[in-house]
Amino acid sequence: MTFRHPERDQISVEGVLSALSNPTRLAAVGILDGGGELNCGEVLKILGVSAKSTMTHHWRVLRDSGVIWQRPSGREYLLTLRREDLDARYPGLLDIVLAGARTDAG
Amino acid sequence: MTFRHPERDQISVEGVLSALSNPTRLAAVGILDGGGELNCGEVLKILGVSAKSTMTHHWRVLRDSGVIWQRPSGREYLLTLRREDLDARYPGLLDIVLAGARTDAG
Repeated sequence: MTFRHPERDQISVEGVLSALSNPTRLAAVGILDGGGELNCGEVLKILGVSAKSTMTHHWRVLRDSGVIWQRPSGREYLLTLRREDLDARYPGLLDIVLAGARTDAG
Repeated sequence: MTFRHPERDQISVEGVLSALSNPTRLAAVGILDGGGELNCGEVLKILGVSAKSTMTHHWRVLRDSGVIWQRPSGREYLLTLRREDLDARYPGLLDIVLAGARTDAG
């Protein structure tokens, strides 16, 4: 299954904020910010999340808002943060939000 | 009626992002960013919103997340953006989000 993703100019700030306004999704984005592609299972493991179906919903929200790329690879799905697109469209937003999550964590 | 507001250190980035992820609330914050106190009716007028009850919900979300102060004054309510608190806790976030809304508007 190949997913549809919005083009860079179809991304909206409301959509990105909504996607990042959930602690689990925000934590997943923080993990993907390490760079490169990770498969869903790896991210779940780092997050300590066992409910795969909940994450299916979270990946969809992140994908539909333009925050991540998700592509099939064999029986798994690979995830990449769309940092270049997000930085181009909303310079600084991602870094500030990730820093904010660290502020909250104390 | 006096409202409860979170203290600065009770504000969470998820709560702020969620509050700002709605176009009407984001537009209201853009109006309040002009500075000072405005009453709800003035903001509604600038927004071109006639449904007062919908805005009652929006003010609550903005208030509970720590984005605005809301205080009664006679028969009206006065609103102020909590810019100092937001800038202290998440430096740059508000400006980048408001700039993002302008980017989206093209």
